[in-house]
Order: sequence, then structure tokens, then C-alpha cells
Amino acid sequence: MPINSSLLIQYFSYFSILKFTESVFRSVGFSGSDAELSARLLTRADIRGIDSHGVARLSGYIRLVNAGRLNPLPKFQWSGRFPVLRTLDADQSIGFVSANAAMMECISMAETFGCGMVAVNNSNHFGIAGQYAMLAAEKGLVGMAFTNASPLVAPTHSLDRMLGTNPISIAIPSQKSKPFVLDMATTTAANGKLEILQRKNQEAPSGWIQKSDGTISKDPNELRSGGALRPLGSFEELGSHKGYGLGSMVDILSGVLSGANFGPWVPPFVAFLPLAAENVGKGIGHFFIAFRPDGFMEQEQFLERMEKWMTTFRSSQTIGEENVMVPGDPEWALEEQRMKEGIPLLPAVVDDLNQLAAEFGLPLLKSI
Amino acid sequence: MPINSSLLIQYFSYFSILKFTESVFRSVGFSGSDAELSARLLTRADIRGIDSHGVARLSGYIRLVNAGRLNPLPKFQWSGRFPVLRTLDADQSIGFVSANAAMMECISMAETFGCGMVAVNNSNHFGIAGQYAMLAAEKGLVGMAFTNASPLVAPTHSLDRMLGTNPISIAIPSQKSKPFVLDMATTTAANGKLEILQRKNQEAPSGWIQKSDGTISKDPNELRSGGALRPLGSFEELGSHKGYGLGSMVDILSGVLSGANFGPWVPPFVAFLPLAAENVGKGIGHFFIAFRPDGFMEQEQFLERMEKWMTTFRSSQTIGEENVMVPGDPEWALEEQRMKEGIPLLPAVVDDLNQLAAEFGLPLLKSI
Repeated sequence: MPINSSLLIQYFSYFSILKFTESVFRSVGFSGSDAELSARLLTRADIRGIDSHGVARLSGYIRLVNAGRLNPLPKFQWSGRFPVLRTLDADQSIGFVSANAAMMECISMAETFGCGMVAVNNSNHFGIAGQYAMLAAEKGLVGMAFTNASPLVAPTHSLDRMLGTNPISIAIPSQKSKPFVLDMATTTAANGKLEILQRKNQEAPSGWIQKSDGTISKDPNELRSGGALRPLGSFEELGSHKGYGLGSMVDILSGVLSGANFGPWVPPFVAFLPLAAENVGKGIGHFFIAFRPDGFMEQEQFLERMEKWMTTFRSSQTIGEENVMVPGDPEWALEEQRMKEGIPLLPAVVDDLNQLAAEFGLPLLKSI
Repeated sequence: MPINSSLLIQYFSYFSILKFTESVFRSVGFSGSDAELSARLLTRADIRGIDSHGVARLSGYIRLVNAGRLNPLPKFQWSGRFPVLRTLDADQSIGFVSANAAMMECISMAETFGCGMVAVNNSNHFGIAGQYAMLAAEKGLVGMAFTNASPLVAPTHSLDRMLGTNPISIAIPSQKSKPFVLDMATTTAANGKLEILQRKNQEAPSGWIQKSDGTISKDPNELRSGGALRPLGSFEELGSHKGYGLGSMVDILSGVLSGANFGPWVPPFVAFLPLAAENVGKGIGHFFIAFRPDGFMEQEQFLERMEKWMTTFRSSQTIGEENVMVPGDPEWALEEQRMKEGIPLLPAVVDDLNQLAAEFGLPLLKSI
């Protein structure tokens, strides 16, 4: 994928973006450690090439703070009745801080008992799901992370936006390779991909979007006229009920089970859209799992088998020129590249960051 | 879906099929309780309308016994180092018996500690995944079941069959409704759907199958000429890498982590295909999870919220005449219908059962 597709794109060093982001979070009242953590987890999306979830969203989080929907100084409340299950009421925390705490708790329970699960309610968006799963993989565990999100997706046969793009992620450590990291929206395409098409004034492939009457649309702006995203599978004959089922699973684990809002009641990310009149829970919800491979076989044996899995799949016969990759490979490659070459930001994103700098009296970001 | 699409289809009472199946398993040396259990779990597919996984496969299991690949009197070997994780070496058991034991162990661990996970190696095919997840839901728990299977599916950009149709299933109890049951192959279409098209001499939709050169095919017989099934998502622009990622996750949990074979080494279900020259593990593998909703909130509150989720989704606005369903609804409806009206069997399946009857000196099944 060519990154530098426009001469208007400027490059910034990762560390300058990280420091700037941390300063902005401090400026709206985050504690030092929460500001550092949130900045690190938000900008992880920029390093890994999921540009829609990185600093492009920083001003959105700040507007949620200003609207009183995101608490910069949350007090976490934990509950649970069993050794390996916990619920976290995140007190309207930014998702980065609550999700990080939840996965750390999963890892801690897993280290003692073999596995741990945490459901989080009263939270906000947490950026890319995969990085929480990766926290477990860095420690040699298998990690899974799920979240519900603002409703944009219509179930099979439905006109209504009932589900978010509700990601599934799993990270699995290997011997020599970087971990296997699956991190996928349960829709055909994540909303961020529509935003890219909107900016480029291009059509979407048939199967991503439906109009307000349920027929297929190629217009990436269709969601502004009552349209909806389609679940993975896109069409009934290609199994869209499966994408709908997976998105539902994520909504139930993250929302129903945690005590958060679910389905059409999940609050919007953007502060200019009002909250629903009715609530069925608190904020948005997440769900996390960590478990130890060495509960099933020797760790070294598992890592060796996992390495064999990865090399076997990577070396399968290709169609034409494209490589066969395993989940996570493209993001690991981008991470290496961007740490060296810097993070490309679109002019609109740079303007947005400059406005934040002016608002909080911070020095402007300088491109490299 | 019209069941009675051919006058050649005969109907049989569920109980007559169940008893016949039990007698066949006894005849090849199963213990009484394993024969009863295997018959009940195999024919659950017939009641729920997944005809490809029911008695149509009975003779296939018997051929595996005769080929020495399926042990009618297995001795299970359990291992584990943590309170909530176990590995089961199933000693070439039929999948029904090992999967049932594994999920029961998950439920037992969950009842004490909150959750339980079991990885199974050295097993054989276990029928429909959803029924093991349902064992947990019947007890008020959330259940998940996964299995790898004979390689038929090509990763995105690959020519090679590297994965099985590797299902994901989850069952979640509700207050008044029957449980939410997602049970889906991670391919666009399960192999059973191809078999139906082969019998009817019809084309497959574009996106299910690729030829041996990787181009799209509509021929349901393509797998006999080196073709492959495509992962859920079907095409790169519609997210086939996501279906590939999900199938990979299932293969790693079920195969790599359990000590079973994985990827291209998973042994074929049909006894006439030889085993691979190399093995990377034992038999095929499964993975199971059970956990308690009341580890996160009061059980009654959870069931009420789940009921609200189900009624909300079912009552969303429809496109045209089709109902919006939640995962499991079609199978629960078929189960009710078939318990009343009987199970429809194709002539080829009836012939197959009559041959088994002759082989073991059992009375022929009588249609109703």
C-alpha cells in the first residue's frame, strides 16, 4: 500500500507525536501516568498503520472530555465472585486506561490460575483492540480483546444500525516470529476505510455499504443519509449472517455481560451526536481474556509448534505476486518502517493537532 | 428453506434414527454409554437441520473404525498444571465422546473457579460444534467450542489447502428465549453446502470456491481437481483475510495448542484418503471454553439483559419480507418441526444406512 500517495502528507517522528499527545492529555486533567499510558496506546495505531484510530482521533477524545462524557480522573471499581472473573466499572475513563488495567488483571489472574477474564463497563473507545491482546502475548500468554462501538452496522435482512464494527482480536506468541495478531472489525470494512474513500472522493466496493432502504450502495457518504455498514460476508449468499453473528457475540460479551450499553444504545464516539434518550447500561463495554499456553503443553514446545505454523503458512504457494501473510505481518512491517521513517499525517490531521496546540498553549508539532 | 424438495425424500422418526445409530456404534465395539452418547450427539445435527453432519456421516465414522483410525474403546489421558486449564489426549476416540467429556470438564472447572478451558488432541470429527457450546448454556453458562478439520481452504493469496472449515461456536443462555447459538464455519460456505449443490447439479455462487490456479470457480466439484474453498469474506476487497484469520485462530487453538495436527497435516475424515506421511501431532484437535455469567453480574440480571438483546434485534426493521433472526433461531425452529414431522433423509443416505443394517444384522429403518 503506497503511504506517500499525496505530496501534502507530512512526516513526523513517532516520539514527537507521542510527547505531544501526552501533553494534550495532561492539559485536560489526566494524571501523569494516565496521560503517558493513553498517549502510548493511542499512537500505537499510528505506528501500526491503522491511521483512522491514532492521533487523527485525539481531538475527538478531548471533545468528549469537554462534553463531560469522558472523566479525566476516573476511580475504578472492581467486582467479582470467582478467582478468574472480574468486572470493572471504569467511571467514564478513556478506554486506553481501563482496557490496559483490565488486561493486566487478566494476565495476573492467568499467571496464578491459568486464565483470567475481565468485562468492563462505563468506558469509552480504546483505540485498536489488538494492542491489549498483544500485552498478553508479550508475556508469553494468549490474549483476546473485544469491544462494542457506536451502532453503524445492519444485521442481515435489517435496515437498522444495530451493531458497531465490534472488533475481535487475538494475539499468540511464537518462538522467533513476532506474535500472531488478528485484529479485525466484524464488518466487511472498518469505518476508517470509508473515511479514506471520502477524502479521496472514490467509490466503495459493492458489499461494504447499504442505503437507507437496504439496497447496495457504493457511496462512502451513505451513512450520513441513513445507510449502514454490512457485516463481514457482505451478501446473504456469501455468509453475511456469519459476520452479523460474530459482531453480535462481541456486543454480548462486551456490552450485555459487562453492564455497559449494547446494540443500538451504545453511545456515539463523536461528542456532537447526542446520547440516546434511554440507557440500558453504562458507557461502552469491553471484554478481555488471557490464558497460559503452558497450561496445555510445555511453553517451549508450544512456541516451536507456533513457529512451525507461521512458517508453513507463509511459505504456502502464492497466487501471482502477492505474498501469503499471517495475521499481524503487515502491521509488524509497517511498525518497523514508521519507527525509521516517521508517521505520515494528512493535512486535516495536522490542522487538528495545531488547533489543540493553540488551545492548550503547546508548541506546534514539527515535521521531519 | 423447503425441506421436501424431492418426492424421493423419506421421513423417519428421530427416535428410530437415534436407536439405529446407537446399535451401529455398539456393533463396532463402542461401550453402551459411548454408543448412546455418540448416537445422541451425531443425530443432533439431523434434528437441527445440519444434514451434512448427521447420520449421512455414520458410515464414514464406521469406515474409520475399520481402518484402525478411530478407537471404539479409548482410554482418556488428562493433564494440566493450573486449576482451570486441561489437555485431553483422547486416544483416537470418536469426537463426540471426547468433546462431551472436555466440555463437561470445562463446566466443572467453571462452576468452582468461574471458567474452564480444555484442549483436546488425538481425536476425530465431533459433528456440529454448537452442541458442545449448548451443553454449557443449558447450565446457565456461556460455552464456546472450536475444532480444526481436514484441509480444504486456501488462505488469501494462496493456492494451497491449508485450513479446514474450522468452526467457531458460542452459546449464551437467555431468560425466556432459547439460547443464542452461533455455530459457523469460517469459510463462505461449509463443505456440506457444496455436497448439496453437487447432488442437485447446480452452480455455486461466485466467491465460494477457487480453481487449482486460484481463479474463481462456480463448479461445486472443483475440490476434486485441486481447487479450494475460500475463507469467509470470499474476495480480498470484501475482507477474505478476516475469514482466513478466524480459521487460523481456530486451527491454532484446536491444533497447535492441544498437541494435535494442524494446518495441512490435519488427517482427512474419509478413510479412503491416506494419512499424511508426516505428522506434527496426534489426530485432530478441539478447544472448549465455559464461563459463568454470574462472575460478572447477577445471573438473573444477565438473563434479563440477554432477553432484551434478543427481542431488540429480532424486532429491528426488516428489508422486504425476511425476518431478522438472531443466531440459533433457524435451528431451534427446525428442531421443533423435525421432532414433530420426522427427519427427511435423501435416498443415498437411506441406502447407506440399509447397508450398515445388513453388515451388522440390524433391522432396516422404517420411514413414517
